[in-house]
Amino acid sequence: MTALIARQARAAADAGVTIMAGGASAPVPPSIEGHHDAAMAVPPMLDALRRAEAAGADAHVIACFDDPGIAAAREVVQGPVIGIAQAAMQIASLLASRFSIVTTLPRSVPIIEDLALHYGMCHALQAVRAVDLPVLSLDADPDHARALLRNEIIHARDHDRAEAVILGCAGMSDMCQTLSDETGIAVIDGVHAAVRLAGALAGGGYKTAKTGAYGWPRDKSDDQHHVSPLRKPAQ
Amino acid sequence: MTALIARQARAAADAGVTIMAGGASAPVPPSIEGHHDAAMAVPPMLDALRRAEAAGADAHVIACFDDPGIAAAREVVQGPVIGIAQAAMQIASLLASRFSIVTTLPRSVPIIEDLALHYGMCHALQAVRAVDLPVLSLDADPDHARALLRNEIIHARDHDRAEAVILGCAGMSDMCQTLSDETGIAVIDGVHAAVRLAGALAGGGYKTAKTGAYGWPRDKSDDQHHVSPLRKPAQ
Amino acid sequence: MTALIARQARAAADAGVTIMAGGASAPVPPSIEGHHDAAMAVPPMLDALRRAEAAGADAHVIACFDDPGIAAAREVVQGPVIGIAQAAMQIASLLASRFSIVTTLPRSVPIIEDLALHYGMCHALQAVRAVDLPVLSLDADPDHARALLRNEIIHARDHDRAEAVILGCAGMSDMCQTLSDETGIAVIDGVHAAVRLAGALAGGGYKTAKTGAYGWPRDKSDDQHHVSPLRKPAQ
Amino acid sequence: MTALIARQARAAADAGVTIMAGGASAPVPPSIEGHHDAAMAVPPMLDALRRAEAAGADAHVIACFDDPGIAAAREVVQGPVIGIAQAAMQIASLLASRFSIVTTLPRSVPIIEDLALHYGMCHALQAVRAVDLPVLSLDADPDHARALLRNEIIHARDHDRAEAVILGCAGMSDMCQTLSDETGIAVIDGVHAAVRLAGALAGGGYKTAKTGAYGWPRDKSDDQHHVSPLRKPAQ
Amino acid sequence: MTALIARQARAAADAGVTIMAGGASAPVPPSIEGHHDAAMAVPPMLDALRRAEAAGADAHVIACFDDPGIAAAREVVQGPVIGIAQAAMQIASLLASRFSIVTTLPRSVPIIEDLALHYGMCHALQAVRAVDLPVLSLDADPDHARALLRNEIIHARDHDRAEAVILGCAGMSDMCQTLSDETGIAVIDGVHAAVRLAGALAGGGYKTAKTGAYGWPRDKSDDQHHVSPLRKPAQ
Amino acid sequence: MTALIARQARAAADAGVTIMAGGASAPVPPSIEGHHDAAMAVPPMLDALRRAEAAGADAHVIACFDDPGIAAAREVVQGPVIGIAQAAMQIASLLASRFSIVTTLPRSVPIIEDLALHYGMCHALQAVRAVDLPVLSLDADPDHARALLRNEIIHARDHDRAEAVILGCAGMSDMCQTLSDETGIAVIDGVHAAVRLAGALAGGGYKTAKTGAYGWPRDKSDDQHHVSPLRKPAQ
Repeated sequence: MTALIARQARAAADAGVTIMAGGASAPVPPSIEGHHDAAMAVPPMLDALRRAEAAGADAHVIACFDDPGIAAAREVVQGPVIGIAQAAMQIASLLASRFSIVTTLPRSVPIIEDLALHYGMCHALQAVRAVDLPVLSLDADPDHARALLRNEIIHARDHDRAEAVILGCAGMSDMCQTLSDETGIAVIDGVHAAVRLAGALAGGGYKTAKTGAYGWPRDKSDDQHHVSPLRKPAQ
Repeated sequence: MTALIARQARAAADAGVTIMAGGASAPVPPSIEGHHDAAMAVPPMLDALRRAEAAGADAHVIACFDDPGIAAAREVVQGPVIGIAQAAMQIASLLASRFSIVTTLPRSVPIIEDLALHYGMCHALQAVRAVDLPVLSLDADPDHARALLRNEIIHARDHDRAEAVILGCAGMSDMCQTLSDETGIAVIDGVHAAVRLAGALAGGGYKTAKTGAYGWPRDKSDDQHHVSPLRKPAQ
Repeated sequence: MTALIARQARAAADAGVTIMAGGASAPVPPSIEGHHDAAMAVPPMLDALRRAEAAGADAHVIACFDDPGIAAAREVVQGPVIGIAQAAMQIASLLASRFSIVTTLPRSVPIIEDLALHYGMCHALQAVRAVDLPVLSLDADPDHARALLRNEIIHARDHDRAEAVILGCAGMSDMCQTLSDETGIAVIDGVHAAVRLAGALAGGGYKTAKTGAYGWPRDKSDDQHHVSPLRKPAQ
Repeated sequence: MTALIARQARAAADAGVTIMAGGASAPVPPSIEGHHDAAMAVPPMLDALRRAEAAGADAHVIACFDDPGIAAAREVVQGPVIGIAQAAMQIASLLASRFSIVTTLPRSVPIIEDLALHYGMCHALQAVRAVDLPVLSLDADPDHARALLRNEIIHARDHDRAEAVILGCAGMSDMCQTLSDETGIAVIDGVHAAVRLAGALAGGGYKTAKTGAYGWPRDKSDDQHHVSPLRKPAQ
Repeated sequence: MTALIARQARAAADAGVTIMAGGASAPVPPSIEGHHDAAMAVPPMLDALRRAEAAGADAHVIACFDDPGIAAAREVVQGPVIGIAQAAMQIASLLASRFSIVTTLPRSVPIIEDLALHYGMCHALQAVRAVDLPVLSLDADPDHARALLRNEIIHARDHDRAEAVILGCAGMSDMCQTLSDETGIAVIDGVHAAVRLAGALAGGGYKTAKTGAYGWPRDKSDDQHHVSPLRKPAQ
Repeated sequence: MTALIARQARAAADAGVTIMAGGASAPVPPSIEGHHDAAMAVPPMLDALRRAEAAGADAHVIACFDDPGIAAAREVVQGPVIGIAQAAMQIASLLASRFSIVTTLPRSVPIIEDLALHYGMCHALQAVRAVDLPVLSLDADPDHARALLRNEIIHARDHDRAEAVILGCAGMSDMCQTLSDETGIAVIDGVHAAVRLAGALAGGGYKTAKTGAYGWPRDKSDDQHHVSPLRKPAQ
């Protein structure tokens, strides 16, 4: 799946952009299905992000639709950090007044709804739908997966009045165009969306704000002589 | 002011991107300060957008912080339409957990708050502040304007706990870097933000969804034999 | 349709109230179906409102369920400006704890939902339903239109638990009583509601507040010597 | 205070409207300051409303700014029931984009904020302010009361950016015009607002919806043979 | 029904806790079905609460799912006052990310939805469902009632994606375990939940805050010499 | 600090309850100040929770005011998992209509505000205030810390109209009673609140719902033959 995502990311990027696709050096769950899996993946991911920035990365994409550890990620690097759920919802909201999301397992539905609440997208988001397939089954039987996805997209189009549908899993990236062709409505892939935004932000010189919630993690060794970084920003 | 905005837009765009800056051919208010001014500017703007798309524009930026006529604009063209308020708030929300906006006149404050409600940004937006200067005074005495802006940005930083501040008027674009340097926090300009997003979306092949709220304006000549475009999308 | 609306408005008004029904002198779309149509209709409407106030109108009703240009209208006149959507939702919320709205085209559904968000009615509003008929077809085949409306009202009553249903188009005004009789629940027409509120406000001496968002449009000729009208209200 | 309110109500009503002002026949608290006082006043009020409707009242105004028992009142009568808080907020929202409320005791502030949440007015309501005077002191030293109110209205105008201010107690009704003259902004009295709306609704033939939440109180004597009134409305 | 509730409450309480179950000494409606019934029950309930606290009660449970008079109750006693709706929703939100509620009559649905809005539970609450049975019918034909409840719980589980279901009436308390066994999901009874929370709060020494909205009802006899209790708390 | 928290927890628990206080066996940050620290602490915490349940724990308290990893924790154990922020806000909302929170560092303010949004507490929560001290300084100079806290509590009482104040850090637990005595308003400690709720839930036989978002982490080895646990709950 990492290879698939890397391929999609490279296809999405402008010429001249280098995609470093990869994951953690420490062991992580083979797929992220629920909060536990996400929590276990975050510390190795934070380490990978730091190494990527040291190796010259100007922006970072977290290619899991739960946007796991996104706030922590924004603390440990300076380049913009883009989650594929937030990116897809932002781009959808620029192209359509209402959209739905189709994901894999039912247990991911409340996770994605909670992200939408946090991102202020509850008014535009019509529904989160699940095809009830594990993430790794997307690879194992892609035709079956695509048939299930198409069915839910049609329901989103006809019953939710969605004007665009977001694919709620990085592993669905390569089905995006076909599903749009088959259903007649815009289908948005989070990996593509996030790579486009990451390029836009990096190319525009944007950096994560370091004066507040996303400041560098604190060094605890000097807490007796604390000067608050928020109230007295360096000139 | 149009020349200033065009210069800022060109500075923001990637190499290879052509910026066609311009406005309406019909008379419009010299500045937009309130709902009436915006309403009068929209019909000529819609005409200009259509002409721009016919001339080859792949995406469109509306360079007024009220995002006037943005939904109507999305109906009359196919390329993505980006408002500078929505763009600035989206990028701010990717870089900071909380932000404030500084605008010109007090009467623009509720207009911008209403946009934030519509865009789902009320939780992240700490305050909308006004320096109480008309838009055209930004040009007339830029040093005075910048001093007032700096003061409000410092209040946003210290009292609102804003981690980034958005400049809430296209006419402030060229003060962005100086104000950030002077105050020590991220300052975001809507024109820059919108040009970056417009490039990202156009380059990624995104189009406005035409199956719902942003469908082409209806031709009324055939209403007796109506077939709804929403329920029966073309294969 | 203008004649129909005028007739309904006169039937709704108290004895002694004069209804001046009319529209723009400049060309406008024959019906308003979407944001573009509304945007094109607003500048001539603003002109018509100014002329009506000069001719002695004490209050103003905008008889299109999108409440187009309502904030701009409140800037250009002093008498209260009542939109038929806002009026109908306010009166519905005084009579019922939950209500639904039935409109013409599916593309109007998100427009009306956005109005409800802006007016704070999302909690009381159960659903916006569309019969999928163009506005002008209401005139062309009223029996067919009424059958479709009745069907949606019954769905609103039984599936949405609506206790009242609002007709979401000025062109449906004359079917209101029949539809209520046929379905056994309260059916509210926006034209009637707005005329009642306009009379109540004008008769009570209420005026639009001119010290903030709805202040008179600014005269730009004097911007070098600006005194903010908001901070220093005239005695 | 009842006499004062009756006088204000009569001044607000159209010619030809009869105001029956009165209260409960059973003992009630002399003023309503908090939830307990309101709870004790409601049962006698419901009885008074039933008697008023039997005596021919076409609509009902509850003249306490907590809108006590308003949902219960809508169950026991058929004529529209208007609370002065809901009426004042509705009319304010038609005249101004933002407003504040000034009330008597600090303990009423969260009560009024909760009403605003319930009525969907949180976005338009800037602040609820208290002069920290008991209700009955408004009568005892009206000059002192008016000076305190004026001060809070000025704060609402200058610090809250309120474009209108609502007087949050029926006992302030007669100071409305003076306070508006002294402060230069619109000041809205709930009694006046509610009487205007009650006249508009009664004159327009509106009735409380009886098919849902505001249905007549249930007669419990026949519960073994229950037929739900909601699901099977009478033809 | 009072005996049933008392039995359930005693089963829920820790050893050593004394349950004083009872109601009003004055006449009250035999069941609470709507706002009128609740309003009539509150004054005698407030009196019963005062007597219970005088008799040594450390905390209070209001065993009706409308949480009638809960704010007034918090004014008249010092021990924590727990409503069964608020308790059940709080406990459900600690055990499940999404839940639904099943109640008796359709007219209670908007009442419970309004409570959820007030308690901040709208995001977690999926739906309020009604079996369309009067409260007293729960006693009269419990098998029929349980079959209807089971059916709605299954709908909540399968269609609402509820992970827990709350029984929205005190009279359903004794069916809780059976319904959970039959449907395979968590079923939460408000009486049980409230008794557990009441024990936790009383045992932890918590008291209702008396410095604000829940301060003791005001004695009106001394209003000329008023000192606000909120601004100057006793040392 | 762990010893302090354990002492407070034991003081809060009923007789007969055993408190197993402890942390991770793997290295974790010495204090949690921001998202990174929380993310690093969660995997060892999940391991500790599993071991605690295997050792017989009936319920679990996460004693950090960011409620880190709470959803993941609910996946890996069956006993109720209580976060001190959610517990304190729930208990505060039962005792007071409005409350504020006082925490350590400014960077924790948006984290706590986000929790309040997620828990539906935004309406009741007046403000989150920070004393601008690192967590470990609470231990180092407790008198200084308490003076700063007292000052913010007084501001919360007088400026926010808070009726109760929550201490937003587990390390402040032992100052709770003193601060309440010094300021005259209710001060609530999250550790105490969470231990009371954990006891109430465990004693009442409540378990985390395992049929949805908090289901056991998925075993990925069998994904080809997937049966959804949500749709077909075990009998």
